[in-house]
Amino acid sequence: MRMLGVLGGMGPLASAEFMRQLTLLTPAARDQDHVPAVLWSDPRVPDRTEARVHGGEDPLPALLRGIRALEAAGCGAIAIPCNTAHGWYAQMQAATDRPILHIVDAAAAALRRLGITGPVGLMGTTGTLAMRLYQERLGVECLTPDAETQASLVMPAVALVKANRVAEAYAPLAEVARGLRARGAAAVVLGCTEIPLGIAAGPELEFPVVDTIAALALASIGWARAELAGAAPGS
Amino acid sequence: MRMLGVLGGMGPLASAEFMRQLTLLTPAARDQDHVPAVLWSDPRVPDRTEARVHGGEDPLPALLRGIRALEAAGCGAIAIPCNTAHGWYAQMQAATDRPILHIVDAAAAALRRLGITGPVGLMGTTGTLAMRLYQERLGVECLTPDAETQASLVMPAVALVKANRVAEAYAPLAEVARGLRARGAAAVVLGCTEIPLGIAAGPELEFPVVDTIAALALASIGWARAELAGAAPGS
Repeated sequence: MRMLGVLGGMGPLASAEFMRQLTLLTPAARDQDHVPAVLWSDPRVPDRTEARVHGGEDPLPALLRGIRALEAAGCGAIAIPCNTAHGWYAQMQAATDRPILHIVDAAAAALRRLGITGPVGLMGTTGTLAMRLYQERLGVECLTPDAETQASLVMPAVALVKANRVAEAYAPLAEVARGLRARGAAAVVLGCTEIPLGIAAGPELEFPVVDTIAALALASIGWARAELAGAAPGS
Repeated sequence: MRMLGVLGGMGPLASAEFMRQLTLLTPAARDQDHVPAVLWSDPRVPDRTEARVHGGEDPLPALLRGIRALEAAGCGAIAIPCNTAHGWYAQMQAATDRPILHIVDAAAAALRRLGITGPVGLMGTTGTLAMRLYQERLGVECLTPDAETQASLVMPAVALVKANRVAEAYAPLAEVARGLRARGAAAVVLGCTEIPLGIAAGPELEFPVVDTIAALALASIGWARAELAGAAPGS
C-alpha cells in the first residue's frame, strides 16, 4: 500500500500528536499493523493567520513544496494537521492528484458520531474564523468567540502551545469553551490543532468537544483501510 | 538549513514520541523556531529481533529504502528512534554520506549529563542485548536481565506497547528496572524506544533512568543547532 502523507509542522507539537493519535486509534497487534506514513514537519511555513489577516507572507509556496515532497515519497493521500492551512485547500488540491483529506469534513464526521446536529461552539485561529472555513463547510451552525475574546484569550493560548508552554494554555482555552457552551453550544469544535493540546493539559471539560487532531487521524485511518483494500480514492 | 531525517515506524508510537520530544526540548517561542524534520514512519520494516535472534527476514533493504527517501527529501542527518535497528548501523552509514546520529552515543551523553560512571542497568530487546550494541559502545559497564526475565517480562511488555496497550506495559518494565537497580545499577538505560513509553505510563521510578527517545532528540537538536550555524557534520 502507498503511505499516508502528512503535511505538518504547523505546529510541530500538533503534528507529533497527530502521529500519536494515528497510531493509538489504529487497531494493531504489532508494528506491521500500523499505518505507514511520511510526516513532512516544516515549522518554517509562514504563519497562516498573519498571511490572511495582516497581509503577512504567503504560505502557499511552502505548502506546495511539502506536497511535492510527499508526492515524491510515494504518498497516496495527504492529511494536514493544521486547520488554518485549509484556507489554501483549493489551491493545494488543484496542485496534486492525491486526495487531501479535509479537516473540516473530519470534524463533521466526528459530530455525526456524537449525534450532534445543534449549534456548536467553534474555536480556531483568527485566520480560520475570518476565512469562514467551518461556517461554510461544517453543515452545523457555529457560535464563535467575539473579537475581544479571540484576541485576549484564544490567540495568546495558541501561541503558548507553539512556544512549548502547553500547561499555561489550558485556563484561557477552557474559559472560552465554557463561554461558548453557556451560549448554547451542544459541543465545542477545537478547530485549531494547538487547542486540543492545551485542553488536554487540564481537567476534562464537562461537555463534548471535537478534537480535530483525532478526527483527522480517524479519517486517515479510514483512507488507509480503503487503500489496503485497493479501494482508496486516488488508487 | 537542511531538515533532520527521522527513520521511524519501529515502532510508530516511539516515533511520534520522538517528534514530541524533539519539539518540547527545543527552546522555541513560535513555530518557526522548531527543527524542520521529515519522519519516514514505516512500521512494515521486518522485526529486528526476529531477524537477529530467530533468522527472520532481513530488515536492511527496508531500512535502506527509508534512508534513500530521507536523502531524496534533502535531509542533512538521520536519527533512528529504534535501538535494535542500530544493529545494522554500519551498513546504513556505509550506504549514505549523511551522518546517522547513533542512539548509543546519545545515551552515553545522557549518562555524562547525569554524572554517572558506575554500572548501569540495560533494558532492551533480546536482539539489542544479543548484538551487544550497548555493551561494546556505551563505555560504562552494563548489567542485563537474565534470559528468563527477558523472555517473560521485557519482550512481552515491548509487544504490549507496539499493540497500543501501553498502560499494561508499566508493571513488568518497572519490575525489571527495579531488579537491575537492586543488583547495583546507578541508573537504568531504557535501550528500546518502546520502554520509556511503558515506564511513563505509571508512577515515576525512584532512581535515574535514561530515556533513549529523549536522548536521541537532544542529540538531534544539537545537530540542528550546528547545521543552522553552518557547522554540522556533513554540511
